[in-house]
Amino acid sequence: MSEVSIVIREAIPSDAAEILSVNRLLANETDFLSLDKAGMALTVDELAQELGFIYESPNNTLLIAKHDEIIVGLASIKADSDCHLAHAGEVGISIVKAYWGMGLGQALLQELIDWAKSTELIFRLYLTVQVRNTPAIKLYEKFSFKKEGRMEKAFKSRDGAFIDLYLMAYLI
Amino acid sequence: MSEVSIVIREAIPSDAAEILSVNRLLANETDFLSLDKAGMALTVDELAQELGFIYESPNNTLLIAKHDEIIVGLASIKADSDCHLAHAGEVGISIVKAYWGMGLGQALLQELIDWAKSTELIFRLYLTVQVRNTPAIKLYEKFSFKKEGRMEKAFKSRDGAFIDLYLMAYLI
Repeated sequence: MSEVSIVIREAIPSDAAEILSVNRLLANETDFLSLDKAGMALTVDELAQELGFIYESPNNTLLIAKHDEIIVGLASIKADSDCHLAHAGEVGISIVKAYWGMGLGQALLQELIDWAKSTELIFRLYLTVQVRNTPAIKLYEKFSFKKEGRMEKAFKSRDGAFIDLYLMAYLI
Repeated sequence: MSEVSIVIREAIPSDAAEILSVNRLLANETDFLSLDKAGMALTVDELAQELGFIYESPNNTLLIAKHDEIIVGLASIKADSDCHLAHAGEVGISIVKAYWGMGLGQALLQELIDWAKSTELIFRLYLTVQVRNTPAIKLYEKFSFKKEGRMEKAFKSRDGAFIDLYLMAYLI
């Protein structure tokens, strides 16, 4: 495994165009990770505005991982503004296939957890992952995420098969 | 128990103003049901537009229950446009307190299930419910919803206590 230098930072409005194209790439090359397709329906200007909101939000973040100035991974925490749910952040991580297996998922997850702890607002992190995605499940378990349930047929793969998802969570 | 005549129908754009006020009422009188607070931040015009989208959507619906021309309950199915998730609809039901215990929840849930079956697109219905909300859990179990998991501390009540939620699902 060659060593590559990756920069991880919070996304800002001017990242919008590149994030849209990377999202499109990620959607085409894998269905292992559930991307937010709602975000892909936005125009560059709308996403730029959204990135501004996320940047300012106390309980939402979007991190980008860059290699040679190119985005190769995205990681997010999304939480509701509703006071009943604002402490619970949903974790999402997407990595360009050529950058799998280099520890980038681990680096992004660590950054997300550190960020969540720094908020002093988020006390629960949760995510869903396909039951067949063993590498991802192992990664989440390494970071003390526990399986809370199995969601029957919650994901439909591109070949039309229904796949169960694990619901996993980590309490801060 | 007195018998009241309730009309249930799909919401249309002109219902926006009343839905906003009912939502505000529901948010104040109970935290048993997780309402969608994002919807409450909308203006009447924005919500009217949103209601138009929901009305036209093949896998989203919002039902209103009316008594004497007044909205006394709301019931929704929300699903993603993403092809991986479009078959999974999240159920939400909110009823004005004065109308609890009359079978209105059961009537709304039956309407939602019938609607979901008619779509031939939705194959999974799911919801979250506070573990202490025994009447709601019994209602969902009566309609063959099964507990899939227990989400630790996923809900924060108004007094600041963290409450677990059950994830429940029903496969069509």
